[in-house]
Amino acid sequence: MLTAGRAFRCRLKRVVSSTVAFRDLSNHGYSKPQVVTEDVPGPKTIALKQEANKVHQIGSINFFCDFERSKGNYLVDADGNVLLDCFQQISSMPLGYNYEGYVNLFKDESTVANIVNRAALGNFPPASYVDDLKMMMSVAPKGLSQVVTLSCGSCSNENAYKAAFMWHQRKSRGELPMNTDDNIGSCMINKPPGSPELSILSFAGAFHGRTLGCLSTTHSKWIHKIDIPAFDWPIADFPKLRYPLEEFTRENGAEEQRCLTMVEELIHQWRHKAPIAGLVIEPIQAEGGDRHASNDFFCKLREIALQNNVAFICDEVQTGMAITGEFWAHDHWKSPTPPDIVTFAKKMISGGFYFTDDMKWDEGYRIFNTWMGDPSKFPILEHTLDVVKSQDLVKHARDTGNSMQSALKDLEQRYPGVINSSRGVGMFVAFDAVDTKTRDDIVKGALRKGLLVGASGNASVRFRPSLLFSKAELDIAVDILDSTLSSISKN
Amino acid sequence: MLTAGRAFRCRLKRVVSSTVAFRDLSNHGYSKPQVVTEDVPGPKTIALKQEANKVHQIGSINFFCDFERSKGNYLVDADGNVLLDCFQQISSMPLGYNYEGYVNLFKDESTVANIVNRAALGNFPPASYVDDLKMMMSVAPKGLSQVVTLSCGSCSNENAYKAAFMWHQRKSRGELPMNTDDNIGSCMINKPPGSPELSILSFAGAFHGRTLGCLSTTHSKWIHKIDIPAFDWPIADFPKLRYPLEEFTRENGAEEQRCLTMVEELIHQWRHKAPIAGLVIEPIQAEGGDRHASNDFFCKLREIALQNNVAFICDEVQTGMAITGEFWAHDHWKSPTPPDIVTFAKKMISGGFYFTDDMKWDEGYRIFNTWMGDPSKFPILEHTLDVVKSQDLVKHARDTGNSMQSALKDLEQRYPGVINSSRGVGMFVAFDAVDTKTRDDIVKGALRKGLLVGASGNASVRFRPSLLFSKAELDIAVDILDSTLSSISKN
Repeated sequence: MLTAGRAFRCRLKRVVSSTVAFRDLSNHGYSKPQVVTEDVPGPKTIALKQEANKVHQIGSINFFCDFERSKGNYLVDADGNVLLDCFQQISSMPLGYNYEGYVNLFKDESTVANIVNRAALGNFPPASYVDDLKMMMSVAPKGLSQVVTLSCGSCSNENAYKAAFMWHQRKSRGELPMNTDDNIGSCMINKPPGSPELSILSFAGAFHGRTLGCLSTTHSKWIHKIDIPAFDWPIADFPKLRYPLEEFTRENGAEEQRCLTMVEELIHQWRHKAPIAGLVIEPIQAEGGDRHASNDFFCKLREIALQNNVAFICDEVQTGMAITGEFWAHDHWKSPTPPDIVTFAKKMISGGFYFTDDMKWDEGYRIFNTWMGDPSKFPILEHTLDVVKSQDLVKHARDTGNSMQSALKDLEQRYPGVINSSRGVGMFVAFDAVDTKTRDDIVKGALRKGLLVGASGNASVRFRPSLLFSKAELDIAVDILDSTLSSISKN
Repeated sequence: MLTAGRAFRCRLKRVVSSTVAFRDLSNHGYSKPQVVTEDVPGPKTIALKQEANKVHQIGSINFFCDFERSKGNYLVDADGNVLLDCFQQISSMPLGYNYEGYVNLFKDESTVANIVNRAALGNFPPASYVDDLKMMMSVAPKGLSQVVTLSCGSCSNENAYKAAFMWHQRKSRGELPMNTDDNIGSCMINKPPGSPELSILSFAGAFHGRTLGCLSTTHSKWIHKIDIPAFDWPIADFPKLRYPLEEFTRENGAEEQRCLTMVEELIHQWRHKAPIAGLVIEPIQAEGGDRHASNDFFCKLREIALQNNVAFICDEVQTGMAITGEFWAHDHWKSPTPPDIVTFAKKMISGGFYFTDDMKWDEGYRIFNTWMGDPSKFPILEHTLDVVKSQDLVKHARDTGNSMQSALKDLEQRYPGVINSSRGVGMFVAFDAVDTKTRDDIVKGALRKGLLVGASGNASVRFRPSLLFSKAELDIAVDILDSTLSSISKN
């Protein structure tokens, strides 16, 4: 019955099988960074930016890249600078640049057929889509039995919110029909009861995307939000933990309890204003500055949502896919109840979300758009999952992450007036600088020495290496940071 | 200065050049539809749907496809049925299936490098991105000097609305600073003045996407909107024209004036409630049932927007890319003032929007997300534009469109109790059935005979063939429709 899908997959496996045996975590090309221009970005990037500026807003462009010459964890820029990349296209590259297995996939004509004939997956999917869905289900979070594919992280969160609203209304209606004249007539003009006054609870410091629904739940940087109308939805505090954690156990416990109480109060307060259909939370607030909370906090939050019939939406767009040393960051919580919805994108190659049986909607065309994801991404994801499993990259992230965390702790102790609060789960690690200017100096100084790291929050430096980041590369990164911090501490 | 980009482009040109000479508009493979199963969808699709249903909502799946065996305007389904496809993946395939030139692109290693190293285009684009932007500017609507790339149609409209809000607030502030404490503090909690009470005016019957901002401007079908909270934004009537147009000149003129007056009144009424920063309109309401208005209506609407400082956003996601017999449907208007923003996706392969110098924002990270489109789509778009230009597919759409419109007019006269109101611009054509059930019978009946067309609105049948749709294929489509309508008229 699945002939076409299976045939496609079998052909693919043949191409893939020659590469999954590859277990060397090194880079096959570069063994260290090399900066050849006086400054980074160099003159070619500056010239390209001037050219692009004629037709495009260029304010966010760091530098232009030469992807053909990039390899593994080394990104080559347009000026020929070889950079050790611990940011990986905003945390979206699972296996680094020009991974051999990926390149081989495109020698297969069925892969190419799915690119050049981009299906409207909601209406006319390729037969292989059924196998693609099953492939995605092979890493579904525990307890989540369903999946939908979408194009990007924002789209995944927007549609997850819609699923939460639909679920809330279905429960509220019980046996009553959905398509009454009153509901139909009012929804077409954006009014209740058809377009109900409902809300999604989010957390201060959160980032869930920038389309208008997502942006109403994003509270990380004002430049994302200013001048844009938003839904007036409830916002709870996210715990502000003090570091080192072992010194502030009591304070941090009280802080987390304060935030949990606030959530409960908001659920109560909004009951008659715009009932909270769902809450959305990142297991680690990423863009907001790598803000963590304890597993206990998340388990209790999950329980509060459960008790109050609030859908629990876990945004794993940045935390998913092995980097935290579990496949999903929320696996660390060991919560007895899974999230209702888990959204993904970035390193998962495709966007989408997983959800429980209970969340499943009954009618087609409710979560829908023209493309519903991109079939050309599925072979890349499948190959990535093969590599993650066969090379046990979850364990690799845990092991390398421990080394990263130790190294940062060491740097923190050696430069106490410059950086603090090093923290992490697996390879998802960060530290804070004493202020924004110092953070910017660290990021810029490291880049000049060939290390690319990310800035986030007010004063944080974040590391989002590929899953193939090696101990040898960590040593290089730490050396560069050391020398950067040393220069800064002397100034 | 553009060495890397140019090198990329030159290599690509070599691959492409062997195929742009291809001027035969026929299909190289199939010359007629062939239905081999008793019904469409056939048993393999039914089995695949059952399998998919275990992990996925399948309500909108028409049938599964075999893209490897599809060719030109013929789509082969999982059961081996060969269908003449006049819907083309919801109007998103410009050159039909397995277009030779596309397949060849992926033999080029630089194309593959841009797929397997998907850039975060807003931060670290490939050097070739500058040439890609210029390539897109080669078909920019007249008067629009800037472009931004995005992933899909919804994302393009969401960000176009944000650009309109930003533009409105920049004009309102004049010389005053944006980043006051009051603006920053309030926007972070979704409140004015930082998150201002502004609105986007849309039209009854419109479709602009399904994310929460877009959905607040979509009013085509209740199933898209029910249970989902929406921004309370103003909605104007879209003209309901009567057909044939030449018989109802006076009535249609009055109807259009009524709608224009309503727009002016809404702009006035909302001035103190939630000022209208932009209005969004499709040149032809597509999902809403192929609803047209006159060029005069659009020119006057453009003038009203101009006089009232309302950004004019033209949604060309479905109408763009040559199908109407102009590259952009709004070219037909001959408006003295261009739109402020034109959004695109679907047949443009990449999403995004064009905009005027005046709309350009000053700061990075305001229109931004991780991927900002997909570099793997640009070579496909570039090749498509080469073919559209070298084969003058704009003229082909005009000529073939005239034949399509004549043929439908003829059918309409022969089956007056079954269909009416045939209409179109270029190959963007439709007719109405007398009621929803008859429309559904026509779509289903034609499919059984091997013709795939789209349903839209309450009772419309729409044609969205590829730009390579031939007269011979039109004859086949008309024969099937004729025989379908004949059966229905006898029942």
